[in-house]
Parts: sequence; C-alpha cells; structure tokens
Amino acid sequence: MSDLIDTIRPLAKKTDSKILMVVLDGVGGLPLTVNGETELASAQTPHLDALAQESQLGLAELVGAGITPGSGPGHLSLFGYDPLKYVVGRGALSAVGIGVRLGAGDVAVRGNFASLGAGRVIVDRRAGRPSDEKNVEVVAKLRAAIPEILGTPVEIYTESEHRFVVVFRSGGVDEAGQGLGANISDVDPQVTGVPPLTAEASDPTSARTAELVNAFVARAEAALAEEPQVNGVLFRGYSDVPHFPSFADIYGLRAACIASYPMYKGLASLVGMEVLPVEGEEDALEGKVAALTEHWENYDFFYFHIKKTDSTGEDGDFAAKVKKVELFDALLPRLRALNPDVLCIVGDHSTPSKLASHSWHPVPLLIQSRYGRKDLAARYTEEEAQRGSLGLRRGTEIMPLLMANALKLQKYGA
Amino acid sequence: MSDLIDTIRPLAKKTDSKILMVVLDGVGGLPLTVNGETELASAQTPHLDALAQESQLGLAELVGAGITPGSGPGHLSLFGYDPLKYVVGRGALSAVGIGVRLGAGDVAVRGNFASLGAGRVIVDRRAGRPSDEKNVEVVAKLRAAIPEILGTPVEIYTESEHRFVVVFRSGGVDEAGQGLGANISDVDPQVTGVPPLTAEASDPTSARTAELVNAFVARAEAALAEEPQVNGVLFRGYSDVPHFPSFADIYGLRAACIASYPMYKGLASLVGMEVLPVEGEEDALEGKVAALTEHWENYDFFYFHIKKTDSTGEDGDFAAKVKKVELFDALLPRLRALNPDVLCIVGDHSTPSKLASHSWHPVPLLIQSRYGRKDLAARYTEEEAQRGSLGLRRGTEIMPLLMANALKLQKYGA
Repeated sequence: MSDLIDTIRPLAKKTDSKILMVVLDGVGGLPLTVNGETELASAQTPHLDALAQESQLGLAELVGAGITPGSGPGHLSLFGYDPLKYVVGRGALSAVGIGVRLGAGDVAVRGNFASLGAGRVIVDRRAGRPSDEKNVEVVAKLRAAIPEILGTPVEIYTESEHRFVVVFRSGGVDEAGQGLGANISDVDPQVTGVPPLTAEASDPTSARTAELVNAFVARAEAALAEEPQVNGVLFRGYSDVPHFPSFADIYGLRAACIASYPMYKGLASLVGMEVLPVEGEEDALEGKVAALTEHWENYDFFYFHIKKTDSTGEDGDFAAKVKKVELFDALLPRLRALNPDVLCIVGDHSTPSKLASHSWHPVPLLIQSRYGRKDLAARYTEEEAQRGSLGLRRGTEIMPLLMANALKLQKYGA
Repeated sequence: MSDLIDTIRPLAKKTDSKILMVVLDGVGGLPLTVNGETELASAQTPHLDALAQESQLGLAELVGAGITPGSGPGHLSLFGYDPLKYVVGRGALSAVGIGVRLGAGDVAVRGNFASLGAGRVIVDRRAGRPSDEKNVEVVAKLRAAIPEILGTPVEIYTESEHRFVVVFRSGGVDEAGQGLGANISDVDPQVTGVPPLTAEASDPTSARTAELVNAFVARAEAALAEEPQVNGVLFRGYSDVPHFPSFADIYGLRAACIASYPMYKGLASLVGMEVLPVEGEEDALEGKVAALTEHWENYDFFYFHIKKTDSTGEDGDFAAKVKKVELFDALLPRLRALNPDVLCIVGDHSTPSKLASHSWHPVPLLIQSRYGRKDLAARYTEEEAQRGSLGLRRGTEIMPLLMANALKLQKYGA
C-alpha cells in the first residue's frame, strides 16, 4: 500500500483548530465469560456515555488482523506511521523506554547479563535473573571500567533484572550522513554450553560498531571477573536511530506530548512532538490536566496518555481496570471544558485482564467534532463501537480522520 | 497496494447483462445539528426507499480515510482506477473540464492572464480578474496571432476570468511512444515585481515543449501589447495525456456516459467511454433519460451523472439539496423501467451543505441485483447505509462488485 503519509503531507494546512488525542493505554478488553461484559462495558462512565452520544465511533486495528501490537507499533500507528514500515529497533526502543535520547549516528544495543563458566562457556543466559539492585551495582562497575572504547563514548544503563542497554555515541554523522552502523551479528548464541559469539559487521559503516561491541564484551568480562554469577554479557538487537518524518513535516502540526512514562515520551519525541513536563507520581492525572490546560494555547495537537488502564489489564485485575476507566471518566469533563475542535479517545492496543497481556483485539475509537453524522453507538465500549459509523479501520487512518475533522486537509485533486 | 484492475482484467467476460451506475454528484451530507438528519434523510424519497429495501447498501470512501476527493479522483475511483495511482494533471483536467479531447502525445497547459509593467515586470498575476467576455475577446486575438508555433498546431481556450488553456498538438507519438513531454518548469514565478520565468525542460522529450511555451509567451505579449491590462501570460501545470487502460480493455464493457457538464464527459472519455449526446440545458434530466432509453440496447454499462445534488451542497443550501434528491427520486421509476441487471446508486464524494464544499465523509452506496442477501438498510441514507451488508469500502471496490453482480466475472483460480 502506498504510504498514506505521502498522500496527507501535501494536503495538510495550518489552521487554528485544536486536536486532542487521548490514548487510554491498552483500553480494549474482553468479557470474562461468553457474552459477558468487558471492562469498559462494566464501568460506570456517565461522561464518556454522553460524549459517545454526540460522537462517531468505530474500531481500530493498530497493526493488522490478529496482530498484537507492542506499545511502539501501537503508538506509531496512532500517530499515522505504518508500523510495518516504520520500525523502531529493539535497542532503540529499550533506550527510549528508559528515557535515553538518541542522536543521529548513535547505536543503541540491548544487552543481557549472563553467567559464564570455564572456557567462557555460557552457563545461564540470564545470569540467574539478578535483582534490579544487583543490575544497578554491576552497571556501576561497567561504567567505571568502560567510559569509552577507542575514543567512542560509551553509556550503559540498567533496564531491569538481567537486561541493560549500551549506547555508543558516534558524535554525529559524517558528511556522507554516516554514523555508526547497526548491521552486525549477535553476540548471544541463544543457547548455553557454548561461548559468546564474535560480532561481525555486514556492511562497512557497521565495522566500527562490531569492533566496539567485541571490545565491550572483552572489557566487561575483565571488569566482572570477580562476580560469582553476573560475569558475562550477551548482545542482540542493535539499532541505529530511526529517522521518521516529523509531525510538523507531515501534518504541519505543533504537537505536544503529555505522558508520565519514559517509553511514551520517547515515542512522542521520535516523531517530533514537544514533551511537556508533567508534575506528579505515576499516572499523575492531575499533573497531566494541569499541563494540558497550561499549554493549551501553544500547540494544535495534544497526545494525552493514560497508562493505568493497561497496567491493571496486564495484572489481570478486571475490577481494577474498571476502576481506572471510571477514574478517567471523572477526568473527562475537564478535558472537554477546553473545547477541543476534535476530541479522540482511543487505545494503542487492547489489554484484556482475561489475558493479562496485550492482545490483537481492535480498540474502540471515538471521534467528536462538529462534522459528524448521526451514529448508532451510544457508549464508548467494544460492543457499541461495532455499531459506529467509522467502521473497522486501520490505526493509520485515525490521524487523517482527525485532520479532516479539524478542517486541516485540502481537497485531493480538482 | 496491488492494483485491483490487474486482478479483474483476466476475469472479465462479456455477457448480455446491463449495469447502470447512477452518480449523484456530492450526494453525501451532514446534519446541521448534532444527531440531526442529513439532506438525504430529510428528503421524501418513496422510490429510493422501495429500491433500498430490495438492495444491498454500504458506504464508500473514494480516495481514503479523511481525504476529500476532487471530482476527478472521485470519479476515477468509481470507475475502478486507484486515484492515488491514476492521476489527471491540472492542465489535462482543465482541458477535459471545458470539453477538449486530448490525444496521445499532446500537452495541455493551464494559463493565467497577467498584467505586465515596464521591463515585463508582473504587476498583477491575474490581470485584474477580467470578465469571461474579456477573456473570450483576448483568446480570439491570441488564436489569430498564434495558430501554430514551429509547425506545431496550437489551440487556445477560455476557461473563466483570467484562466485559459493551451493545447499543443504533437500530431501523435513517434515510434518510441514519444510525443511532447510535460516536464518543464513554470513560467509563473508566483510573485509580482519580477518578469515571467523562462520555461526549462527537465527531460529530452520536453525540450520541444519548453521551446513552444517560451515562444508562445513572447508572441502572446506581442499580440497583446496594446491591451491596457491583459497584456501577459503565465503558465504552470503542464500535463501530457494520462494513459489509462480503457473500460473495454479492463472490463470488456461497451460503456456509455450520460452527463451534461464537460468535466464529467471528459473524465468518462479518458477511460474510453462513449459520450452520448444529451438534449437540454444544465442538468437536463429529461434529456438524460431520453438518451439512456434511446441507447439502452447498444451498451452494457451506463454512467449516468446527476450534477445538482453537488451544486446545491456547494451553495450551502440544505433545502435545495433536499429538493434535488427528491427530483431524482421522481425520475427513478423511469430508470428502473429499463430493468437493468445491476443498478448502482452512489456519489463521487460528499458535499454537505453544512460545509458548502466537498468533504471526506463516505458516500452511501446502493447495489441492486438478483443476487443480494437480506440487508438491514431500509433507505438510501448515510445512517441506514451504516447498517448495510456491503460495509465500508474503498471506491475502487465498487466496479468489481457491479461486475460480479452482473455475472461478468469468472472465478479466480481453479
């Protein structure tokens, strides 16, 4: 399919209208029993119900039929980027997920701590799953031992348990647009009983990266020689920085992100949104509303992220997810009071508490503007959304619909 | 996306069945108030209602989600041509819009009359917006002065106000399939205070076109030297003739166009339809029915165009659009009396009077044949079409559905 972005870009025009996209993370759910009610349907949501009755509803598949989206692809799709084309590598996503900004030419690498035995043979590919605290302690040792390699600055970050992230800072790209390449083979053989592999480059710009990775492995093993269990490192998943066209470039939008968790702020910054500061702990609902209100005049697109609908689904806690939906419902009037020209409520994927994980089920989509038709859906639920006028759509169609409803798209052809 | 046309072509077979596609231009609408009725829903349409109750309904997006189609892309989509792939250039569309046929190798160019001051500096890029009458007068001068350039025949046509169209007739394409190329730079600098630009070709086949355009500019200025205001010409938007596979080639159909306005006749002729003469002024409903009846036996596909549903929408006149729908409803029994094997009612885009312009909203689609399933939609309205069995579809899916319902498509694969 030709990229919808390329169709939209020349049609986009700047206007004063404002779009508010609320992403209820993992909002789609499942009934616990056949023909039962989902979390959304079980929740008491008077404000969402009222909104639904003057909105257009439908369902969105973020990646494709049967495909369970990760948070990265789910959000990219919401932002209009085909997630099968615009791919954030595992290393970059890990870096972004812990709040590390990547520059052009840099490479981010996902690492696992491992336990090595005699002859460097891998005994445990996860080093006995160390605690996060142990991870932090080992990372501190590595930081002291490996501040740079061959003049290239090295940054090392704890992710969790046996997982860490290494960023090689290239100092930018050269005149040919080349920094460090990411096309190198894995150090992790994905089996035990053998030594770690030597990374090899498959193109010239990655040769230096392979050198850096192999030197890192050797110096890490030296630095961790006294550790009884966490004494080796394995790498797979190398990513250079994805270059996505920006929101300003495609849509002509001044876009802002209001989110609390590093992953979402990182994804928003990858597409060129301004990440606004949010006061408060965890989901920080009050802080988010305050940030939205304070900056309302300065942007024409707001991505407003709510996390806990997903977390409770991941915990398999149906009742808790219902409560989080109700908590958002209570917040909704304060968002509507800002009077956005286009208000969208959607999820980046489903997270049914029945599955205690992300799932492939389409998410309910709601769009309110002055330019909607009568719509049969009466609530923002999976079941009612089936009756909505928007039908079942790809996630990448949402941004064009929001742009259209904001009257920010010119006619295609004469 | 792979082109549906390429799938259809080898499956198409000739039969005696007849397809009547009625295009109610801009038929989709919007309610004036939240949850109100659209123009279609407000109209009294006993005949359309009866037809809907024995038909399949659905909604069609002609270009894509959120994309507002121009008439060209909207119609191409209805005719089965992906409008993102089959593009009619601005020059060709202008020529087509005033009823000028283009041949292979010809180039059509959009021109603006301009006012030039001392040193050929552009004073007004639209020559003070002359009247249509003044335009005709100036075009007559140019026709007399520039019948040909360097042996290439030149045709000059009034479009409206400051707009005119020039067609350079190449006399066909050479053995290599080359006529006049259209890849030349604009004469119009799009600012005042500077002289017109010199057109430059960006490929070899366009070199001669650039020569023709530059000679035209010089000779036009000489011919208009005595004019106080309309004394210069600017060009941008050059188009060679789009080469679309024809209806006969793709579908094996003998196809006829019944329309009154030049744009629609031109679009139909681009895809190889026979344009039938229609008696009468403006929408000429009686003349159209007469043409359809007279030629019913001679073709197996009819494109039957009604314009005023769009014009009234463009005027922002809700009540007038309702009336135009009712006028069509009154006509419908005479179309049904011809007993087409497949009857389709659809629009090329929506034109809600609320917006007084084309819009992105999907258009209601109705297909009647002997091979439909029970369908919940009881009227040809936007709201009822949501409940229809055809669902929400791309415009390019309509022709395959009509062909199938006419039993004109063979099985795909064994």
